[in-house]
Amino acid sequence: MDNLFVIKIGGTIIDDEGKLSSFLKDFALIKGRKILIHGGGKLATNIAEQLNIPQQIIEGRRITDAETIKVITMVYAGYINKNIVALLQANNCNAVGLSGADGNLIVAHKRTSKVLSVGVDLGEVNYGFAGDIDKVNSEWLWKLLENDFTPVISPVTHDKKGQLLNTNADTIAQEIAKSITDQYKVTLIYCFEKKGVLGNADDESTLISKINTSAYKELKEKKLIHSGMIPKLDNAFSALKDGVKNVIIGKAEDLTQLIAGSSGTSISNEQ
Amino acid sequence: MDNLFVIKIGGTIIDDEGKLSSFLKDFALIKGRKILIHGGGKLATNIAEQLNIPQQIIEGRRITDAETIKVITMVYAGYINKNIVALLQANNCNAVGLSGADGNLIVAHKRTSKVLSVGVDLGEVNYGFAGDIDKVNSEWLWKLLENDFTPVISPVTHDKKGQLLNTNADTIAQEIAKSITDQYKVTLIYCFEKKGVLGNADDESTLISKINTSAYKELKEKKLIHSGMIPKLDNAFSALKDGVKNVIIGKAEDLTQLIAGSSGTSISNEQ
Repeated sequence: MDNLFVIKIGGTIIDDEGKLSSFLKDFALIKGRKILIHGGGKLATNIAEQLNIPQQIIEGRRITDAETIKVITMVYAGYINKNIVALLQANNCNAVGLSGADGNLIVAHKRTSKVLSVGVDLGEVNYGFAGDIDKVNSEWLWKLLENDFTPVISPVTHDKKGQLLNTNADTIAQEIAKSITDQYKVTLIYCFEKKGVLGNADDESTLISKINTSAYKELKEKKLIHSGMIPKLDNAFSALKDGVKNVIIGKAEDLTQLIAGSSGTSISNEQ
Repeated sequence: MDNLFVIKIGGTIIDDEGKLSSFLKDFALIKGRKILIHGGGKLATNIAEQLNIPQQIIEGRRITDAETIKVITMVYAGYINKNIVALLQANNCNAVGLSGADGNLIVAHKRTSKVLSVGVDLGEVNYGFAGDIDKVNSEWLWKLLENDFTPVISPVTHDKKGQLLNTNADTIAQEIAKSITDQYKVTLIYCFEKKGVLGNADDESTLISKINTSAYKELKEKKLIHSGMIPKLDNAFSALKDGVKNVIIGKAEDLTQLIAGSSGTSISNEQ
């Protein structure tokens, strides 16, 4: 079975023109099949502010009202996605920028509102046009990959009823990786601003280079992992359980080393 | 040879949510292969104004400075393109939204600046990031069409060196139609706000239902055609010369009738 790299980059690198350009050069040099999923960055928030659209974040999730989904679509599926595609094309990587609506790639449903309480009732949260994924059209991804295209996917999905939805890019990366494990030996790489999972979030020398199921259990119990890493690691183990071969978490600047296995944290579901 | 409809819609219909939705329902019902090319509408100008980016139009062309190409990419390749795709998907049309950068679909070069003069020197006009088309990758379009996808193309191209460019949607429609005449019997349809080419621009009963080469020459000589129609008609005859079978100009609301040949102006290069 052939290798496939599913690589997610987040906001920090997208906001830095020089770093993004250098990352895309490295990405274009990866031999064989690859998919890039990108998040947002500060531009959407900046544009929303300039357009006087108030932004609200609850539990790390942006509340996507009707005006905000317009900005998200403009910035993520438009500006960021097409710029990445143009830069990859300049590096001779045949990139195709896609949202979840294109070719019905990712069908999602509008997240239902949720009653929040911490002993007392905090009222109902309506997440607005946030989408939870139902289905990835992996057959089309496979066709694109077999025709030497490199899909570049923005975190915008649709409900197949005409509504675009804002969907977390980490989750999209995970669902795409999981959807295509019958066709490829999939390595899922999450790029972020740190070297990998760190014992001490402020000290890069405390990089944990390998985490398996039992080590993860222990690290969690002893609270040796920064709480912000827990959802990323839960996602990683969930992906491994569903057939993804490797999950690597590391720094975007180290992409070549992450691919070679000589940097970052490698997650495995061995005992 | 199979039929292909290459259909261009402009700003007036894009700005009207109800009319756009109704047009897309009609478009989705067209049997067989089809491509949609869309222009801009007022949203880009509105967003640019709100972001305090001054807009300058010279000889009907938007001067696309570095900030304006960002807005164009956000609005055209992002918001408008993905909304059209989502609405077509809701109508069971397997639309894929593409800019010219995606899959290297349309390569263009930055328009060179031009010295303007009317007897006296009016100085040099720098059009900024405006793109004139070099090449359409029709092989990929053909593959998409043969796999039952419907390409939806935004008027953003690239120079293959990493720069996105603003390109006239009428010209994109024409170049796409011309590029694929070896594979299909192509009908090119320009939708705009009028019933077709009118003898009197204010009176829809003066619709000219057919124009051939000699009639066009006569209409031009006698100045019976509104000057704004001349570039559209020049484009139409140029497309016919390069192998496009039919060019039809008419109202977006009449799409079904335009396809059936019972509305609009039909342009032919018969004598």
